[in-house]
This record gives sequence, C-alpha cells and structure tokens, in this order.
Amino acid sequence: MSASATTERDLHTTIEDALQRRFAERSSAAEVYGDHFSALWRLAADHVLGGKLIRPRLLLDVHRALSSADSSRENTVAVEIAADVELLHYAFLLHDDVIDGDVTRRHRPNLIGTLARLHAETTSAHDVSLHWARSGAILMGDLLLSSALLGFARATVADETRRRLLDLLEHSIVETVAGEHTDVGLSDGMITPDLATILAMTAYKTATYSFALPLRAAAILADATPAVEASMITIGRHLGLAYQLQDDHLSVFGDHVDHGKDPYTDLRAGKETVIIAYARETRAWTSIEEGFGRQDLSQEDAARIRDQLSGCGAESFSRGLIEDQLESAHSALDGGSGHAEVPHAARTAILNIAESLRGRRR
Amino acid sequence: MSASATTERDLHTTIEDALQRRFAERSSAAEVYGDHFSALWRLAADHVLGGKLIRPRLLLDVHRALSSADSSRENTVAVEIAADVELLHYAFLLHDDVIDGDVTRRHRPNLIGTLARLHAETTSAHDVSLHWARSGAILMGDLLLSSALLGFARATVADETRRRLLDLLEHSIVETVAGEHTDVGLSDGMITPDLATILAMTAYKTATYSFALPLRAAAILADATPAVEASMITIGRHLGLAYQLQDDHLSVFGDHVDHGKDPYTDLRAGKETVIIAYARETRAWTSIEEGFGRQDLSQEDAARIRDQLSGCGAESFSRGLIEDQLESAHSALDGGSGHAEVPHAARTAILNIAESLRGRRR
Repeated sequence: MSASATTERDLHTTIEDALQRRFAERSSAAEVYGDHFSALWRLAADHVLGGKLIRPRLLLDVHRALSSADSSRENTVAVEIAADVELLHYAFLLHDDVIDGDVTRRHRPNLIGTLARLHAETTSAHDVSLHWARSGAILMGDLLLSSALLGFARATVADETRRRLLDLLEHSIVETVAGEHTDVGLSDGMITPDLATILAMTAYKTATYSFALPLRAAAILADATPAVEASMITIGRHLGLAYQLQDDHLSVFGDHVDHGKDPYTDLRAGKETVIIAYARETRAWTSIEEGFGRQDLSQEDAARIRDQLSGCGAESFSRGLIEDQLESAHSALDGGSGHAEVPHAARTAILNIAESLRGRRR
Repeated sequence: MSASATTERDLHTTIEDALQRRFAERSSAAEVYGDHFSALWRLAADHVLGGKLIRPRLLLDVHRALSSADSSRENTVAVEIAADVELLHYAFLLHDDVIDGDVTRRHRPNLIGTLARLHAETTSAHDVSLHWARSGAILMGDLLLSSALLGFARATVADETRRRLLDLLEHSIVETVAGEHTDVGLSDGMITPDLATILAMTAYKTATYSFALPLRAAAILADATPAVEASMITIGRHLGLAYQLQDDHLSVFGDHVDHGKDPYTDLRAGKETVIIAYARETRAWTSIEEGFGRQDLSQEDAARIRDQLSGCGAESFSRGLIEDQLESAHSALDGGSGHAEVPHAARTAILNIAESLRGRRR
C-alpha cells in the first residue's frame, strides 16, 4: 500500500472514530427517553458511518496541508469540526429525503426506508409506517443540525477563530437551505427552470456546504489569511459544482453498475438539471417531455430518453460544463483572477481531489 | 393602566422589536436568493410576531426580577436570548405542524396553510401546493433552529455563562425532540398510551423548553447560583405541565369561543392526552372509542364524547392534575423538598404567571 493510501485510510478511520464516539454518547444519553429514541440514534449512526465522508476528509486533508507539522491540539479541534460538517451533511440529507419522498439512497434503504420497514413489522398500514419514518427523519435532522452548530460553538479555539467559524457555518446553512428551497420551487412549478437558475441552485444547495465549507473551515482552523480563505470560496464553489453536475451526469449517462444511484431516478423524479435545461431549448424536447418525470417510466423508455438527451447535445454540454468548473478551480488555485495563491501542500491536496472528481464513476 | 400592565406592555414591545429587527435583517439578506426565499422569511415574521410571546416574556420578566437595577448591558443580552427562545419555539411549531399535518393554528392558517394558499393561486394541484408549503415549513424550521443556536453561541457573556447557556439549550432541544418523538410513537401505535408515558411525554415535549428553558436562562444570565437554577428546573417542569395539561383540557372542555383552538380538534386527531388515558381505564371507553380519532366527527358527536369524558371522571381527574402541578410549583418556589428558595422579586413574578395560568381560558 502506498504512503498516500495509508494516509487516506488513516483520515477515514480518524473521522469514523470521532463520529462513532459522538453517536455512542448520544445513543446512551437517549436511553432515558425510551427505546425508540435511542434506537433512532443507533440507526442514524449506522447510516452516517456507512457514508463516504467526503466532506470531513476534504477538511482534514487540506487542514493538514495548511498546518505546521507540530499542531496536535489544533488537529483535535479540526477532527471535531470535520465530524460536525458530516453531521450537518447528514441533517441536510434527511430533510431532503423527507421533502423528496425518497426511501432509498445508493441501492439501500435510507433512514426513512429503514424506519418504515421496522414499523411495518407491527402494522400493515403503509401510510402510518411512512409517517413514523418521516417524522423520525425530521426529528433526527433537527438533532444533528443542532449537534453540528453546538460543535462549532464549543470548539476550543480563540474567540476570533470561533467568530469566523460561526459566520461561515451560518452562511453555509442559509445558502444551502436557500438552494434547497429553489430546488423545491423548480419541482413544484413556482420557479422557471432556466440554466442560470439551475446552476445557481446547484452552487447554493451543494457546492457551498460540501466544498466551500470544509475548505474554508480548514483555512480558518489553520490560521490562514482571509485572502486564502477567499480563494477557498471560489475553489470550493467550482469543485462543488463539478461534483454535483457530475452526479447529475452519472445518474443519466453513467454506468449504473458503477454509479451508486438507482438508474434513471433523476429522469423519473423529473429532476431539473442542466442536462434538462439544455434539452428544453432543443427540438428533441417535445419527445423527451412525454416521459420526463413519470414515476412509472420503464428501463427501456428511460434508456430511450437518455439516448435522445445524448443526441440533442445535452450530454456533451453537461460534460463541457463539468470541465469548465474544474478548470476554473485550477485557475483560482494558481492565483488567477486576483485570487491569493494557495500554499503548495494544500494546492497538491486540492488538485488530488479535483483529479479524483474528474475520473470518478460513482 | 396600572404600573404592572405598563411593564407587561413594555416587555411585549421590547421582544417584538428584537424579533422584528432579526427578521428584517434576514428577509433582506435573503433577497439575493430570490423572491420566494425572502417572501418565506417575511411570512415567517408575520406568524412569529402574531404569537403571544409567552416564553420570552417569562424569561425577561424573571430576569429583571433576579437582576440588580443597574444592569443594562446584561438586559440587552437577555432580550436577544429571549428572542432566540421564541425562534426556537416557532421552529418546533413548524416541524410539529409538518408532522401532524396541521394547516391552521388558533383559527387562522399557519405558515403551511398560508404558503399552500399562495401556491394554489398558480395551480390547481392541491398535493403540489401542500408539498411546496410543507417543504417551506421544514426549511424555515431549520433556519430558525439554527438562528436560535447561533444567538446563544454568539451572546456577549463570560465564557462560563456561555457554556452554561449552551448546555441548557442542548438539553432543552434533545428533550423536546425526544418528547415529540414519543408523541409520534403514541399516535402511530408504536408506544402504549398509558398515563405515565403521556405525562413524561408532555413534560419533555412542552414543559422543558417552554418553561424550564426561559426560567433557567433567566437565572444563568442574572448570575444566580446553580441551586436557584436547579429550583427553576422543578418550577418550570410543573408550570409547563400545568400549562400543557390545561391546553389539552380546554381543547375538550373549554369554551371554544374563548379558547383559540378549533373545537374538539384533539378528539378528531385522536390526540393521546391524560384525559384519554384516564378514560381508557373506565367502562365509558367502549363507547368513546367509536368516535375518538375520527376526522369526520360531527360537532354533535364530539360534544357527546365530551360529555362522556366528563361523566366518566376524566374531566375532574384532569383538573385535579393541573392543580397538583400548580401546587408543586408553589412548593418548590417556597423552598420545599430541599429546593433553594427563589429570591423574593422573582418569586412574585413567577407567582403572577402561575396565577394567570390558573385563570386562563385560552
């Protein structure tokens, strides 16, 4: 195993340990409120620990690169803040899944699906099981959102550092929720699905908290200059957009054995993506529109729509956008457009991440 | 107007001003994310400012009583923390309303009802309007929960005071969510509706954050001893239980013109209260059970159930419990059962509140 692979595994284990500790504390404190409540904590722990931990790994990776070798106390704080970022991510996922009515994620039942299945063992009323499960997801989302905020609030750092961290967290939460609100507006017909709106929504809903937040938190915790933190905003937005655009791309055009998502769920859910926004402006749309957003779309019909999206130019347009975002991230990393240059070690860490995004198939 | 009435009005205005300032800032910061998002903030402001502000008034009232006359800086912090407590309350209400499927509160549309009506102006699809409205309520709940936590985290107080405030807030959130989770478990048939469970659920879901939280925050901010803070936990739990039991009592037995709730909603919703828990153990239950929890229950049938609940002893049992709680609050106030005596001025303030609970009809 290469040195960098060892480090990668170390990072993953460090974060898992921190998360496991948190959840163990909470599940045991929850016991006084009854079995169902502590069971909810344990189930949430299973789901969080089964994740890829992309966000906390990004934070710790870049934080290590930005820090002096001898800063073990700061590292302890960074690990806790990284764990908080993952809890925030999962809180957002839970409320998103409630809003979208999703009961699976990456081929397995999500928390809602799991809770509903457990409830169904006691009754045959499907809607009651679903209510129990969704309510649990709303409430666990509230608990984890609170945990993340409390973690930031309690970090043992200088007052000025805490102030910067709290401002960053507030900005990230407001922007993510605003993006999700726009996304709901798009699917409920309140907002017109043009390309500019979809790009802005994607940046707000995903890029801000998934990439800009960990990168900026790393910079703040490593005591980097505000100029470097500002570069991280740009880099994070572009990498985050690349990541989400690629997710949408893979959902339609990816190899579905590799990609974790169920095939074509985005097409069945009528998800407004840049692919769809592009296709709407082409002559192919009339035919695509018939099947788009139909929950009962067969695999064959979905594959036909995929071919039409490819034929009308939406596939290469989407791929081009992803490349654009990755290049803009590179340019900001190198100090382009007036951005402060990112220190060498951190630059390498971020480039590795960008490279893994370019090659990812799931 | 008497001096105390003037003070009451001052208090209300002070809190309203603080809340108005917060919402004005947020609505205007939200504009960059689009019209719908800033409209959501403005609507939430309308609903929060239309409330009775019981919790922040309680906090400020007791804080003033516990503080030295000359403590204007502390008072500024107390006003902000009081506003945060109201935001927390409204965040809980929003997520409760989503979970319960409620679209009205106190005779008028709640935020969900309002959003659904506005959406319906653009479409006739009722389920889409409801989805838009409920999603908005989930997201606004997240924003206000975050605001409350950030307010506590940023309070300009000594480190030790902030630590105590954050511990209090965390405890209050976890306990409230645990209570709500039990409440959902009761209505979804996961938890047996016995009297002890319902009393514990009510204490957790309502008393903790509505009464113990404001009273304890007042004590912490006024630099009261931990022993006085501990008395506030007991007093808050008993007053809070009295308040919620009375709410449940009025919903069934109250004069519905006076009481803000729509008549008999609790009976139609099948709400598990101490009244119902008592009735279940009597011979009257077989007949009550037929109509209990039926959404289509007529006013006449609901009134018949009310009379049966009265006849089987549940009404006087419920009234007795409320009196017990008020007496226990009195006893703790006076230093009974080893509680630290509460300073005289604060004692008077709390007694006034207890008295107004005893007499309230809505």
